[in-house]
Amino acid sequence: MKTLISDKYIKDDKSKAIYDRAVDVITGGVSRNTIYRAPHPFYVASAKGSYITDIDGTERLDFANNMASLIHGHSHPTIINAVTEQLHNGSAYTMATEAEVRFAELLTSRSPGFEKVRFVNSGTEAVMTMIKASRAYTGKYKIAKAEGSYHGTYDFAEVSQTANPSNWGDIDKPNSVPVAQGTPLNVLNDVIIFPYNDIERTIKLLDDNADDIACVLIDPVPHRVGLFPATEEFVKALYNWTRKNNVILAYDEVVSYRVNFSGAQCSYSVKPDLTALGKIIGGGFPIGALAGKSEIMEVLDPRGTFLKHPHSGTFSANPISTTAGRVAMEMFDEKAVLDLNSLAMKARTQIEEVIKIADVPMCITGAGSMFKLHFQEKAPNTYRAAYQNKETKEIIDELLDYMFLKENIIMINTVACMLSTTLTQNNIDQLSDALLRGLKLVKPKIDRLV
Amino acid sequence: MKTLISDKYIKDDKSKAIYDRAVDVITGGVSRNTIYRAPHPFYVASAKGSYITDIDGTERLDFANNMASLIHGHSHPTIINAVTEQLHNGSAYTMATEAEVRFAELLTSRSPGFEKVRFVNSGTEAVMTMIKASRAYTGKYKIAKAEGSYHGTYDFAEVSQTANPSNWGDIDKPNSVPVAQGTPLNVLNDVIIFPYNDIERTIKLLDDNADDIACVLIDPVPHRVGLFPATEEFVKALYNWTRKNNVILAYDEVVSYRVNFSGAQCSYSVKPDLTALGKIIGGGFPIGALAGKSEIMEVLDPRGTFLKHPHSGTFSANPISTTAGRVAMEMFDEKAVLDLNSLAMKARTQIEEVIKIADVPMCITGAGSMFKLHFQEKAPNTYRAAYQNKETKEIIDELLDYMFLKENIIMINTVACMLSTTLTQNNIDQLSDALLRGLKLVKPKIDRLV
Repeated sequence: MKTLISDKYIKDDKSKAIYDRAVDVITGGVSRNTIYRAPHPFYVASAKGSYITDIDGTERLDFANNMASLIHGHSHPTIINAVTEQLHNGSAYTMATEAEVRFAELLTSRSPGFEKVRFVNSGTEAVMTMIKASRAYTGKYKIAKAEGSYHGTYDFAEVSQTANPSNWGDIDKPNSVPVAQGTPLNVLNDVIIFPYNDIERTIKLLDDNADDIACVLIDPVPHRVGLFPATEEFVKALYNWTRKNNVILAYDEVVSYRVNFSGAQCSYSVKPDLTALGKIIGGGFPIGALAGKSEIMEVLDPRGTFLKHPHSGTFSANPISTTAGRVAMEMFDEKAVLDLNSLAMKARTQIEEVIKIADVPMCITGAGSMFKLHFQEKAPNTYRAAYQNKETKEIIDELLDYMFLKENIIMINTVACMLSTTLTQNNIDQLSDALLRGLKLVKPKIDRLV
Repeated sequence: MKTLISDKYIKDDKSKAIYDRAVDVITGGVSRNTIYRAPHPFYVASAKGSYITDIDGTERLDFANNMASLIHGHSHPTIINAVTEQLHNGSAYTMATEAEVRFAELLTSRSPGFEKVRFVNSGTEAVMTMIKASRAYTGKYKIAKAEGSYHGTYDFAEVSQTANPSNWGDIDKPNSVPVAQGTPLNVLNDVIIFPYNDIERTIKLLDDNADDIACVLIDPVPHRVGLFPATEEFVKALYNWTRKNNVILAYDEVVSYRVNFSGAQCSYSVKPDLTALGKIIGGGFPIGALAGKSEIMEVLDPRGTFLKHPHSGTFSANPISTTAGRVAMEMFDEKAVLDLNSLAMKARTQIEEVIKIADVPMCITGAGSMFKLHFQEKAPNTYRAAYQNKETKEIIDELLDYMFLKENIIMINTVACMLSTTLTQNNIDQLSDALLRGLKLVKPKIDRLV
C-alpha cells in the first residue's frame, strides 16, 4: 500500500467490507480507475449539493464533482424533478423525442460555431465520432494531438497521454507513446504528437504531415497537460494552418466547456470547426455530443444519397440525459457562469496566499471554474514542464489522503478542483484553511524535492 | 422521399413540426440514424409497458423495445421506484457505490464465465474495451470478425458490417470494407474478415494470420448477419483454434445476452474468454460492460505495478444505470427468460403460418426472444445468403411503414422483433394478424422479386 497516512485516519470502515466484496467481482474492485485509492475507495450513501456522505456517515465537501461533470453539485432539485417526470414517460425508445430537439436548440444557440449537434453517450464516444467525421469529410486519415492531452479512451485519441521522460523522445519530434499495451503500431504511426502551446515546433510537425492530417485535436484548457489555457497565438497558428491545409480544427471541450458561457473557445479570436462535448452537458447523466459546422457534420446525415459516416447508438440522445442536460445548462446561464468563475478566482487568490504562508515552492494554474496546484514555483506552460516525477506524486498522494481523510475535502487526484454552483465563499475558506494545514504537513517533503 | 405509403396514412402531424425544428439543429434531424424514417421520424409523448404514444396521441404496440434494450418494456414501476430513490442520493460521484458491486455480483453469479466485470457507458465502449484488453493481454494487434456483423462504432469493430456484393470480394478471402469513409487503411489491414458459420474458410483465414491476431470477435446470434445462431461446430472450431494460438475468444452479447438466462453463450459446449454486454443490462439506461476471465481482465487492474490498459470513464458504473440494470436483471430471472422465449416461439409459429397463408416466399429466423423475417423461402445461414438487395429493401420499407403507420406496430427496421416481458399472447396475435395484412399488401412486389 502506497501510503500509511490512511491507517492513521481511517476508523469506522464499512467501505472496506464492500471493497472486499468488490475485488471478487470487479477487476481491481473499481470500474473506473479514477476513484481507486489505497487501501480502498470509499462508498457513497448519499449526496446533496456540495456534500457527499459515505456509508460510515462521514460527510465530505466535494470539489471534484464527478471529475468536473456536475456543474450544480449533487441531486439538484430542479434536475431531479425534470428527470422524475421524464422517467414516468419512458427512458428510451426506437423513436425520437422533443427532449433532444430542445437541448440541441439550446446548445446551438449558446455557441456561435455550433451549427448542428449530434448526441452520443460519453466524451470518449464524442471524440471518436469527431475524429471519424473529420476523416470522412477530408478523406485523410492521420490526426495530430498534443503530448499529455487526455481525450478519452479511443486509442487514436489517447496516444501519448501518459508520455514520460523515459519514452517521450526529442521535443522537436515527440514519440507517439501508447497508453494501452498492444496498441497497433499503425495507430501510433497515424497520430502526430506536438508540444502544446509551442507554435514553431507544432507547425513544423504539422507541415511534415500536411497531406495526411484529417484533424488537429486540442483541448483549449487541457487538464492533463497542466490545466493552463492555450495561448491566443497558438490557437491562431493552428487555425491558420488548418485553413491552408484543408484540415479540421477539432476541439475537445468535454471538460473545458464550463470555462465560459459559450465554452473556452469563445476566449479566442478564431473558432474550431468541430467540438466534442460531455461532462456538464449531461446534468449528471451519461452523455456526449459532437457540435460544429453543418457542412462537415453532414457526413453523418442519413438522408443523403451517400452516407459517409453511418452513426447511431442505442442510448444516444435518450430523453433522460438530454432532459437533465438541458435543465442543467439552462440554470448555468451567463450570470451563473460569471458568478462561479469569480468564486474560482477568489479561491485561486486565497490559495496563492496559502502557498506564501506555508512557504512552499508551489503555484496554481487554471481557467474559469477550474484550477490545479503545481509543485513548482513557476507556473508551467508546457506538458514537460508540468510533468510530475515519482517523488512528487508520492507527496500528492499524501496531501490528497490528508485532505480526504482528515479534512473531509474531495479534490481531483491531480490536486485540481472543478467547482459547482452549489459551492459558497464559506466552502472556499474551508478549502484554503485545510490546504494550509495540508501543505504545512507535507512541506518537509516538498523542501527535499528541490 | 422513398415511399408514398406515408402520405396515405399520416394525418395529424405534430411530429413534422418538431422534425422541422430538429433539422435546423441536429444533423439529419436525428441523433441516431436508426430512428430516422422518411418523411420524418415520430416523436414520443409517453410510453408504458409495451405501448408508446406519440405526440399526436397515436398509441403503438412496441416490438422494437429501443433496439432490444428494454427487456421489461417502458417505464416499469419497479425500475422507476429504484431509480427515483437513487436520484435523491445523487447520480454520479468521484467515489464508489455499492450499486456497482451489487450489480457485478449479480452478473458474475449469472454466467459461469464472468469471473470479473467492468462497467462502461455503451455497447460500443464495451466492445472497444474488449478489443483493447485482448491486445494488451496477448501483445498482438489484429482482430478477426465476421462479415456483416455489427459490433458498435469503434472503427476496428465495424469493418465490413455493411459489405455488399460490389465490394465484399472473394468468399475465400473477404475484403475488409470500411463503414465510414476515411477509415485508415491500416485499420482495414488489421482486421481479418471471415464468413460466419463457415468453419473451413474461417480457420484457413485465421491460420494465415495466427501470429498477429489478438481476438476472434463474434456475436453468437448476429442480428445484422441474419439473426441466426452460430452452429455448435463453428463455435467449437473457433474455441479450439483460439486455444491453440493464444488468442482471446471474444463474444459480443450486447444484443444476444437476452437469449438465455446466462446469455446465448450458455447454449454451447465451450465458453468465451471475454464478453461484451450492453442493452438490456442497463434497465433502460446507458450502460455497457466487459465480463470474463480474471486473468485477462487483470490488464485493467490499477493496483498492479504495471497497468497494461488504463481504463476509466466519467459515467462508467454510475449508480443510476447500475441500479436500474440490477433491478431489471433480477426480474429477468430463469422463469421470465423461459416464459419470454416460449412467447417468442409461439410468435414464430404463428408468423410461419401467416407466411403460408399469404403465400409469400419468406421465412423466419431467430433465437430466444428475437426473430427476423427474410424475403426468401429457405432460411439463410450466411451473411451473403441473407443479404437484401435494393428491391427487397424497398419492399421492407413499405411493409414497415404499413405496420407502423396503419397497424400501429413498431418493428425493428430489419423486420425483426425483440420482445419484452410486458408483451402478451394477445399482442402476438395482433402482430401476426397485422403482418398477414401487410404481407398480402406487398405480395405482388415480392412475387416480382423471384
